[in-house]
Amino acid sequence: MTANTDQTPAGTERIIISVDAMGGDAGPSAVVAGIAKSAEKNPEIGFILHGPEDTLRKLVAKRSVLSGRVRYCDAPDVVTMDDKPGAVVRNAKGTSMWSALESVRNGDALGAVSCGNTGALMALSVIRLRKIPGVNRPAIAILFPSRNPQGFNVMLDVGADIRADARDLLQYALMGASYARNGMNLKRPRIGLLNVGTEEHKGRPELKEAQALIAQFADQADFDFVGFVEGSDIPGKTADVIVTDGFTGNVAIKTGEGTAGLIGALLREAFKYSFLSRLASVLAISSLERLKKRIDPRRVNGGVFLGLNGTVVKSHGGADATGVSAAVKLAFQLAKTGFSEKLAARVASTVELAQDEIEPTGTTAETQKEKG
Amino acid sequence: MTANTDQTPAGTERIIISVDAMGGDAGPSAVVAGIAKSAEKNPEIGFILHGPEDTLRKLVAKRSVLSGRVRYCDAPDVVTMDDKPGAVVRNAKGTSMWSALESVRNGDALGAVSCGNTGALMALSVIRLRKIPGVNRPAIAILFPSRNPQGFNVMLDVGADIRADARDLLQYALMGASYARNGMNLKRPRIGLLNVGTEEHKGRPELKEAQALIAQFADQADFDFVGFVEGSDIPGKTADVIVTDGFTGNVAIKTGEGTAGLIGALLREAFKYSFLSRLASVLAISSLERLKKRIDPRRVNGGVFLGLNGTVVKSHGGADATGVSAAVKLAFQLAKTGFSEKLAARVASTVELAQDEIEPTGTTAETQKEKG
Repeated sequence: MTANTDQTPAGTERIIISVDAMGGDAGPSAVVAGIAKSAEKNPEIGFILHGPEDTLRKLVAKRSVLSGRVRYCDAPDVVTMDDKPGAVVRNAKGTSMWSALESVRNGDALGAVSCGNTGALMALSVIRLRKIPGVNRPAIAILFPSRNPQGFNVMLDVGADIRADARDLLQYALMGASYARNGMNLKRPRIGLLNVGTEEHKGRPELKEAQALIAQFADQADFDFVGFVEGSDIPGKTADVIVTDGFTGNVAIKTGEGTAGLIGALLREAFKYSFLSRLASVLAISSLERLKKRIDPRRVNGGVFLGLNGTVVKSHGGADATGVSAAVKLAFQLAKTGFSEKLAARVASTVELAQDEIEPTGTTAETQKEKG
Repeated sequence: MTANTDQTPAGTERIIISVDAMGGDAGPSAVVAGIAKSAEKNPEIGFILHGPEDTLRKLVAKRSVLSGRVRYCDAPDVVTMDDKPGAVVRNAKGTSMWSALESVRNGDALGAVSCGNTGALMALSVIRLRKIPGVNRPAIAILFPSRNPQGFNVMLDVGADIRADARDLLQYALMGASYARNGMNLKRPRIGLLNVGTEEHKGRPELKEAQALIAQFADQADFDFVGFVEGSDIPGKTADVIVTDGFTGNVAIKTGEGTAGLIGALLREAFKYSFLSRLASVLAISSLERLKKRIDPRRVNGGVFLGLNGTVVKSHGGADATGVSAAVKLAFQLAKTGFSEKLAARVASTVELAQDEIEPTGTTAETQKEKG
C-alpha cells in the first residue's frame, strides 16, 4: 500500500490530503468530482486517493484539473455502512479507509477525509493514529449555523461515543475551546453545556458534576463558561461551543438538518402557490441562494475528529461533490494551520492540570514527570 | 378555592377549561388575551381562571367577548420558573397551578392549561390527578411540523422525565399511538424509536431492549413499528410518532425551534438585501405568512401530559396570546373528544398485556381481577 506516483508528480510545496474514495453513498465518482472542485479553487492542494486504483484512475483522467495532483494507494476492499466497527477493526487492512489513515500516520499526508461509516472510521482512527495523551474519549465536532457573528457554533460530541461522563465532557469543553480559538479565531470562546434547562438543579447527575468541573478550568484554559444551555442555543448566540454527549449531539444535528430541510421544502411549495409568489420567487432567487449557501449542510460538511494525533475529517455519507469539497477544504485549513499539533499541546497541558485537580492521588507522579 | 360565578353564569352546555393565569413569562395579561382569542373563535368554550381574583377580573373586564364565560378561583400564590418541583409540591396549596388542577380533579373543568414551570406542573399533576393504572412515568407529547400528510408528527417524551428505561419507552409508544389515533385520526400510526442510527446494533442498551419490546406489542396495540429512526425523521415522513426519553426529546424540540427561528431571521435579512428582493418579499408576503403559520411554534403550542387521569396542557412559558390560545384549543379538542378516558382505557388494557408478557409472575393475579 505504498503511494504510486502519477505520471506528473505532485508539487512538493503542496499540502497533501489523504482521501478515502470509497464508502460514501454516492460512490467514488462523487468523491473524485469533489476533489476536482477543491483542486480548481485551491492551487496549494494535492491528494492521495485510496480505493481500487484502476477505477480511480479512470475517474481522475476525466478531470484535467487533477492532472499531476493525485497519487494513488490501491486498496481493493471497502468498509460499508452496515459493517460493525468491531468487525471492521479485525479485517480492515485491505480497505481504502485503513489506507487513507495510513497516509496520515506515516506523514505522507497532513489530513484524511472519508465519507465512510463513522463508527468504523473512529475505531480505525483511534487504533492507527492513537489518542492524544490524557484524552479518554475522542469527539466529533461539527459547525452548526448560528446567530453569532462568526456564523457558526462548534458542537461536540456529535457521535464519536454515545456515552460521556463528567470528565469526558470537561475534555470536550477543552477541545472545543481549542478548535474555536484556532479554527474560528475566537480569542476567548464561550462554552455552554447542553441540558434540558438553564437552571442549576436540572438535568442528569453527570451534567451537574461536569458543570462544576468546566467552571473550575475556564480560566486556565482561556474560555468563558456560560453554564447550561438548551437546544435552542445550538443555533443561538449565547455560546460559541456547545458541549454534549455523542447521543444527544447526534440527535440534535440531525433534528436541525431535518428541520432546515422541511422549511426549505415548504418554502419552495409556498412560492409555487400563486402567480405573484412565483414572480416573487424569481425576483428573490439571489436572496434565497445566499440563504441556502449559508445554511446548506453540504457547505459545512465535515465533522472533525478531535483528540487524536492527526487530522481526520468525516464527511457526510450522502455527500455529493459540493459536500466532499467542503470536507476537503476543512481538512486543508486545519492541516495548513497546524491545528492538530496546537490542539494536542493545548489539550494535553490542560488535561494534565485537570488530572492533578480531579485525581490528586495515583497519576500525579507520572504527570509531573511528563511535564518536566 | 371554590369557583365564584361571575355575574353572568357560563352556559351549561359549554366545555369548561381550567386555566392557570400565572407563572408564564408574559404574565396574566397574555393569558387573558389568549383565552379571549379562543372565546372569539369558539362559542362552545368557557373558562375557570386561577390566580389573584382582583387582578384577573380587571383584565377580563377589558375583553367583552369574555363576559359571562369566565369563573374565578382566587389563588394568591404563584409557582415561579425558578421553584424546584420538590419544594413546590410541599407548598403548592395556595398557588394558581394547584387550583387549576383541582378544577379538573373535582370535575368542574374537562381540562387544564398552564404556562408555568413544567417540572412543578408535572409533579402536581401526578399528585392530584394520579397516574393511569399501569403507567410508570407519564410523558409530555408535542406536535412537530413534518412532511407527513397530517402536517405534524407526535413526539414524546419531551421533558416529563429525563430518564426512561425500555418499559417506559414501550409505554410511550402505546400512549403516543393512542394520541395519534384519536387526536390525528390515524388508524394505524407508525411508531419510530429515536436513536443515533437506524442500524440494529447502534445505540444504548435500553434502546435495543425497547426495540424488541415495542415490536412485540405492535399488533396488539394496533400500530406499525418502523424501528429505529434518527433526528432527521422527527420532521420527516418515516414515522407518525417519535418515541424517546425526556432529555433527548427536550433537546430535539428546542433545537428544531431554534433552527426554525434562525432560518426565519436569515430569511428576513436576505429579503432586505436588495431592491429586487425587497420587492419580492412584498409579493411573497402571503406565501411567507402561510409558511409561518404552518411552522410557527406558537400555533402548535401545547405539550399534552399523557398517562394521567385528566387532560393537562402545558403551554410554553414564553407564550403570547396566540400561544395561549393554541394551548386552550388543544385542551378543548381533547376534552370534547373524551380523549383522556379513551387513552386511559386503551393504554391500561395494553399495559396489562405488556405486564403479563414481561413480568409473568407477581402482578398477574391483580391484573386479572381488574380486567374482570
